[in-house]
Amino acid sequence: MGGVGDLLDHLTLQDVVSFTGSAQTAMKLQTHRVFARESVRFIAERDSLNASILGPDAAPSTPEFDLFVKEIVREMTVKAGQKCTAIRRAIAPRKHIDAVQEALSARLARAVIGDPRQEGVTMGALASQSQLNSVRDAVAELSKHARIVSGDPNRVDAKGDGVEGGAFMAPILLRSDDPWGAAAIHDVEAFGPVSTLMPYEDITDAVALANRGLGSLVLSLFTNDPVAAETMVLGSGAYHGRMMILDRTSAKESTGHGSPLPVLVHGGPGRAGGGEEMGGVRGVTHYMQRTALQGSPALLSGIVKQWLPGAPKPEGEVHPFRKRISELEVGYTLKTASRTVTIEDIEHFAHFTGDTFYAHMDEEAAKASPIFEGRVAHGYLILSFAAGLFVEPAPGPVLANTGLDNLRFQTPLYPGDSMRVELTVKSKSVRDEEKGEVRWAVYIFNQKDEVVATYDLLTMNVP
Amino acid sequence: MGGVGDLLDHLTLQDVVSFTGSAQTAMKLQTHRVFARESVRFIAERDSLNASILGPDAAPSTPEFDLFVKEIVREMTVKAGQKCTAIRRAIAPRKHIDAVQEALSARLARAVIGDPRQEGVTMGALASQSQLNSVRDAVAELSKHARIVSGDPNRVDAKGDGVEGGAFMAPILLRSDDPWGAAAIHDVEAFGPVSTLMPYEDITDAVALANRGLGSLVLSLFTNDPVAAETMVLGSGAYHGRMMILDRTSAKESTGHGSPLPVLVHGGPGRAGGGEEMGGVRGVTHYMQRTALQGSPALLSGIVKQWLPGAPKPEGEVHPFRKRISELEVGYTLKTASRTVTIEDIEHFAHFTGDTFYAHMDEEAAKASPIFEGRVAHGYLILSFAAGLFVEPAPGPVLANTGLDNLRFQTPLYPGDSMRVELTVKSKSVRDEEKGEVRWAVYIFNQKDEVVATYDLLTMNVP
Repeated sequence: MGGVGDLLDHLTLQDVVSFTGSAQTAMKLQTHRVFARESVRFIAERDSLNASILGPDAAPSTPEFDLFVKEIVREMTVKAGQKCTAIRRAIAPRKHIDAVQEALSARLARAVIGDPRQEGVTMGALASQSQLNSVRDAVAELSKHARIVSGDPNRVDAKGDGVEGGAFMAPILLRSDDPWGAAAIHDVEAFGPVSTLMPYEDITDAVALANRGLGSLVLSLFTNDPVAAETMVLGSGAYHGRMMILDRTSAKESTGHGSPLPVLVHGGPGRAGGGEEMGGVRGVTHYMQRTALQGSPALLSGIVKQWLPGAPKPEGEVHPFRKRISELEVGYTLKTASRTVTIEDIEHFAHFTGDTFYAHMDEEAAKASPIFEGRVAHGYLILSFAAGLFVEPAPGPVLANTGLDNLRFQTPLYPGDSMRVELTVKSKSVRDEEKGEVRWAVYIFNQKDEVVATYDLLTMNVP
Repeated sequence: MGGVGDLLDHLTLQDVVSFTGSAQTAMKLQTHRVFARESVRFIAERDSLNASILGPDAAPSTPEFDLFVKEIVREMTVKAGQKCTAIRRAIAPRKHIDAVQEALSARLARAVIGDPRQEGVTMGALASQSQLNSVRDAVAELSKHARIVSGDPNRVDAKGDGVEGGAFMAPILLRSDDPWGAAAIHDVEAFGPVSTLMPYEDITDAVALANRGLGSLVLSLFTNDPVAAETMVLGSGAYHGRMMILDRTSAKESTGHGSPLPVLVHGGPGRAGGGEEMGGVRGVTHYMQRTALQGSPALLSGIVKQWLPGAPKPEGEVHPFRKRISELEVGYTLKTASRTVTIEDIEHFAHFTGDTFYAHMDEEAAKASPIFEGRVAHGYLILSFAAGLFVEPAPGPVLANTGLDNLRFQTPLYPGDSMRVELTVKSKSVRDEEKGEVRWAVYIFNQKDEVVATYDLLTMNVP
């Protein structure tokens, strides 16, 4: 709030500036010379003329029609419409626009404005008198291109004691029947309980109108027609940071048009500032740097505390399953004995498990396959024998096999071939006092030292 | 090359500007009003006072000392030093700096400048006379703070016919013994065969001098001391886009200080422009946008052509292993029969494979574990039985099981429990006319419909 003095002059290459506010202020910041000179990262969330679209299929009395009307009124009145994600443009098929206007007006008329402590009040005041004036100015500008069909920016009936002189405003619905002739309705953001209703001709026109906002944080679409939804996503995806498609099946679980979610990207292109926040764990990386490292595998493994292919595989007297996490060194390796896989093993495994796939059972059919030279061992037989080779059976620090990642079978194992395993501590992490996770790099080799399979094995261990 | 007219005025939110060149031009571009107004993405690779550091351990006659000298001369003379990644600052332990200077001067004296078509010539001309003048100006600026110890910016002996008046220049080595008192040597980039040698006191000082470049594309370190390497990486990582650590073991395979590689990030913070290019497949995303999608799993699966959890799992008459990739619909599901896992199965599997881990074999010990209530089935037994349940054995479009991703065991399976599998087409891709890949979402349930395990199964299929 207020001036920042010479704060910006002290930014360096190690700073990130993340800004939420008006496009005007964002531009003033971003063109400040220090940002370019020091390559300061700038993340902005600015103005956004968010749109909500009624699908071509969503005629009056369909669930999607009702959801659309409800959501627009909600977005207009929650926080008195002072939300970066609020719906500023309500876009409906021309044939349904009168019905939409009627339904919206009826609902908006039920809004109760006043002191939020008062029973029954559904919408409070704007942030300040100056904010109220700014919204009235924006409505005046919009009124040159659209007509007010619900509410009066200068008249409000506010409930409660002492509300006189408060920054209250009735929700204002405007309507333009010529949205391509009215630039302001796509460009002027009234940051209050204000929305403009406009018609579209067909889905292509709806896509174009949505994109005419020149970049927004969120677009919502109310449709039960998957083709309309796909057309909208492919046509509008590049112009909106988030797209929400609501229908009768998803409405109940939906958090609505206006809710950014931690697992989803928040931010939008163009007018919305081009910034990106959140989006799951990836959101953290917006505030981090990436440096490429080059060096020998041994050296880099030591620095990143993770075994990398090519790094040394030291062996020791003690079986790795007998060591606690704290005692296990990254790179520590068990090289197992070798075991021959016979045709009897394959036959036996097939009948025991029920997996009698022809490549394991039928020499002629296997040979006819474009990738095998004859009957091959099952992948799961190889995995199972590998465990038989590396597992240390007595109770100890390894509690369980919890999973497996990135398994790739690289060379077929034929009857008579043998296999051996190298089990290497790849990385480790302690979760709490009782358990942690060890990630093992597993390489299975045949008698020619060709790699039969590689994978990451995950175990739960005692710290 | 040259002016761009009003090109920049036409940039929109859908544009990315990627620029390589001087910091001056980059700043002029970046502060152009249209970049802020339209949130145009800007990727810059600018000036960079790249440093190369001789490790504290790398005394004269060590392999690292020789590698360091060789690399600096190479970087000074390749393309006549007109490379964004060239070494501008050579930083060595104070006790070895005289030896470094001597070795560098001896090697530089062997450089043969002239017409590159001439036999024996090792370095050609600069790009132009104006480039030559600009490099001479930079050398004059550097000379105020460092002394020239090898080469003369105004004298060169160029070989070949007609080289008179060409933009030839001898490689120039400067030296400053007070690098903290000489700002220019860290700030002025002479874009030609020019480098400044300077001493450091200890590894902390070396880190600080490296970072004094205020952001570079690449830093190299010549050391055989892993502790020095780790100190440098942790202390300097945030100031350099790439760090190369060279030692006697990695030298032979190294592509050298000056080579950006497609799999590694290229770009650097601060003075280097803050841009990021390449870095494997991720490099493509610098030129893409991300849009969050919200909707029902059924709807979103249809749009992204990938089965998502919660989307419908339609079944059919035909086993999915009997369908070619073109016939397999995303979401198509096989729900298998159920199979009971007995204590005999576990015993049998343990002895057959050799995996006699106590949690499978010893009721008391398994009960004593913090996670099991008694003996449990092997994870690999569950995987193997799952394949037995879903595999269709006859030859057909499925050629092989090629791998498995993201396997997580979620609920233990006890003797007497039963298991069944749901196998769903998650996504598919065709590689060529003969093969493609199908990724299957596999869910294994017990008799209470609890999830025992989930994973992605990969198969090679006929298109």
